[in-house]
Amino acid sequence: MIDIPFDITSLHRAYGNGMHVSEIISECYRRIEEAADPGIFLQLIDPDMAQEDAKKLGTFNPITKPLWGIPFAVKDNIDVGDMPTTAACPAYDYKADADAFVVAQLRKAGAILVGKTNLDQFATGLVGIRSPYPPPKNAVDPKIVPGGSSSGSSVAVARGLVSFSLGTDTAGSGRVPAALNNIVGLKPTLGALSASGVVPACRTLDTISIFALTVEDAYRAFQVASVYDPRDAYSRELPVNDLQEVPPAFRVGVPTRETREFFGDAIQSASFDDAIVSIGALGGDIVEIDFTPFYDVANMLYEGAWVAERFTVIANLLQENPEAVHPVTRAIINKANDLSAADAFLGMYRLQELKRIVAPLIESVDMFCVPSIPTFYSLADLEEDPIGPNARLGTYTNFVNLLDLCGIAVPVAARTDGRPGSVTLLAKAGKDSLVASLAALLHYRSEVRLGATNWPLLLPPEIKSVTSENEICLAAVG
Amino acid sequence: MIDIPFDITSLHRAYGNGMHVSEIISECYRRIEEAADPGIFLQLIDPDMAQEDAKKLGTFNPITKPLWGIPFAVKDNIDVGDMPTTAACPAYDYKADADAFVVAQLRKAGAILVGKTNLDQFATGLVGIRSPYPPPKNAVDPKIVPGGSSSGSSVAVARGLVSFSLGTDTAGSGRVPAALNNIVGLKPTLGALSASGVVPACRTLDTISIFALTVEDAYRAFQVASVYDPRDAYSRELPVNDLQEVPPAFRVGVPTRETREFFGDAIQSASFDDAIVSIGALGGDIVEIDFTPFYDVANMLYEGAWVAERFTVIANLLQENPEAVHPVTRAIINKANDLSAADAFLGMYRLQELKRIVAPLIESVDMFCVPSIPTFYSLADLEEDPIGPNARLGTYTNFVNLLDLCGIAVPVAARTDGRPGSVTLLAKAGKDSLVASLAALLHYRSEVRLGATNWPLLLPPEIKSVTSENEICLAAVG
Repeated sequence: MIDIPFDITSLHRAYGNGMHVSEIISECYRRIEEAADPGIFLQLIDPDMAQEDAKKLGTFNPITKPLWGIPFAVKDNIDVGDMPTTAACPAYDYKADADAFVVAQLRKAGAILVGKTNLDQFATGLVGIRSPYPPPKNAVDPKIVPGGSSSGSSVAVARGLVSFSLGTDTAGSGRVPAALNNIVGLKPTLGALSASGVVPACRTLDTISIFALTVEDAYRAFQVASVYDPRDAYSRELPVNDLQEVPPAFRVGVPTRETREFFGDAIQSASFDDAIVSIGALGGDIVEIDFTPFYDVANMLYEGAWVAERFTVIANLLQENPEAVHPVTRAIINKANDLSAADAFLGMYRLQELKRIVAPLIESVDMFCVPSIPTFYSLADLEEDPIGPNARLGTYTNFVNLLDLCGIAVPVAARTDGRPGSVTLLAKAGKDSLVASLAALLHYRSEVRLGATNWPLLLPPEIKSVTSENEICLAAVG
Repeated sequence: MIDIPFDITSLHRAYGNGMHVSEIISECYRRIEEAADPGIFLQLIDPDMAQEDAKKLGTFNPITKPLWGIPFAVKDNIDVGDMPTTAACPAYDYKADADAFVVAQLRKAGAILVGKTNLDQFATGLVGIRSPYPPPKNAVDPKIVPGGSSSGSSVAVARGLVSFSLGTDTAGSGRVPAALNNIVGLKPTLGALSASGVVPACRTLDTISIFALTVEDAYRAFQVASVYDPRDAYSRELPVNDLQEVPPAFRVGVPTRETREFFGDAIQSASFDDAIVSIGALGGDIVEIDFTPFYDVANMLYEGAWVAERFTVIANLLQENPEAVHPVTRAIINKANDLSAADAFLGMYRLQELKRIVAPLIESVDMFCVPSIPTFYSLADLEEDPIGPNARLGTYTNFVNLLDLCGIAVPVAARTDGRPGSVTLLAKAGKDSLVASLAALLHYRSEVRLGATNWPLLLPPEIKSVTSENEICLAAVG
């Protein structure tokens, strides 16, 4: 057993000090076994193959290979060459010819893949239990839903089994499970990460997302993976800046009290208040904004015809073998049968109108801060009602991709009841580095543990303090 | 009778020399009466009201009012306050509260509205005869279709009845009738002209277009009308530059011979060859491009689900009173009944992929030059087959709005059989002034008559010659 956290800084320090990569890979598999949760991974890479990959890395060199020797996992709706891609639906299962574009970038940078993780089937859900496989246990509290759809990927990181993992995020699948498991969930600008080799959910609204123990780790993986892919028609050429010094003054929009929604969870409300205070202490000028139009946009995901995008992915399966689809998922996606092309266009018109209403609000601030989730739901809650709590978990996430915002969910100080605190910073497309930079400072300031582990988040030596706006300074990673 | 052409230069010169605006307005109505074509206008403004509008202009001042005293007409799918908007469907007819945003801009700049013009019902068609009203006669040859959907607007300009007119252009309705009537058809960048107060065809692909006798006139009206409209969710803030000096060297993409399509019309093919020679003489470096992917995009208009956009506009009418819709139009738009929301998204995915294929071709040149129409069709042809010739007329227009290009159809030298020659210059969104600038030179070089009139197009004094690339220079209008 090797008693170090799997954040990249710790691992690279260990490698620099002579630790052999094979030891870390072995430790990774040991931890997976020790975790004893069959719900996390749907498929593990054979340990010998992972060791083989590690051997091929050559001498430790974090400059040419910024993810040298870093173990990671991918959600099982993302292709890995010669492995099945299941999307948590055995009947859908196909053997991938090649690694997804993003997986290939990460491996080229030295990351070692150890497995493919469980998810809400076809990435449809925010709870993480809509899978024919046993759901992964929430890493912090097994009575709570793990969050989804990227459930396995988030739990694997939160339990310290891998350094980072890939999820996908259409309506919040890369942020909600981060919040529920006390980790970082980076939801990039749409098109920044190629979708080649990813099972689509809503192709116009999907992105791969990244879970990690620290903002710097998530961002480093993001920088490695963010390569323009001419084969993905939705890939965009975006500048991916390094993490940056947060400007001495910046405006952060938060929902007005009247338009905050916690479904009665006063502790979550107080936790959000605390986070706002922290952002103020970091130099943020807090601007209260009526969030009604953002919720109107969020409702488009349900009122509009976007569910038909999910339908296009499994239309054949639904026709030939409907029982193969999870009953809740099936009920949701089959709604597309009632939607006409005219409905699709009417939804787009409405969205375009809402975008115009929201545009000046977006322009009025540098970024937004919202709770990542409004409250917590237990497995029991979901047994009683599989739809309602799922929808409510998306309160602060559903509108984000429809509005082409980027975002990052980041842990803040634990709530007074011990549950993880989390807020999400959101900004216009292309501002990934801005939100990540503030998220990093906010994370350090929160003095939390890493995920569900006992390891503390250590302030890197470059940052002297995050208590005074005059001293903050974040070094570029990589 | 006043024997001057109605181009803006001629009218403003006359006003400057003491002509009274009331005389021009009277002459306008005299010409309309003399034209004796009941198919052109669906509604005329009462001449006394037009004279009243003219009276309110005050002293002639083309600086504060760049369209001072200029008579114009609008297609009857565009609102004029207190007048019915019919879209050429009496059962659809509603009384407009106010002028369409663009009409208001033009009137504010001094233009005098005289009437509302006939069209292919609901702007669905490129022939100009799908209307319950008598179709306007083609201004050049009454046996030929007038072209549509903006049939009345194009004929009114070509016959010299008004200085300019508004059409709309989704699939080519602002270019095809320009080509068929020997006039200029300016198809702006999508979103440059507000759609507020316009009956939509395909809301994501529509624009108001402008017909005029000269490029400068069309462009002047465009500059006046191109004001950002916050109430139109599809309006875009675009810089509208003045007409500019054409650069001494520029690259013009034309279809390879193998991918030119004239449906056997060798004269049209030769006319296009001549136009290419002219562009070369004006300094253009001609680049032959395989146009197959552009035609693939064009096919999306039919294979994709965009017809459902038209359906959203008249869904109620089709349900409650289907007989009120022109049978050809009804058959086309009812196809939307078979299209699902999934079909709509699949079409968008395919379009996005095609856009990626076409993007480097667009980047490789400054603009494209294509024939405006591949050939001519007679009224008799359309009686035999109301669909096929209509579709073929869109060969070089259907892909343009799907690819977010701007364009301008401009007359070139008459064909050897006397029929009007026309090419369309196309460029990326926002390059309206570039294509218009070259179009103006090409028009002058062609030494044609204005529309179907006997007035020649006179080289303005600022342009010494358009025969040598060393001497071309186009002054800014307005």
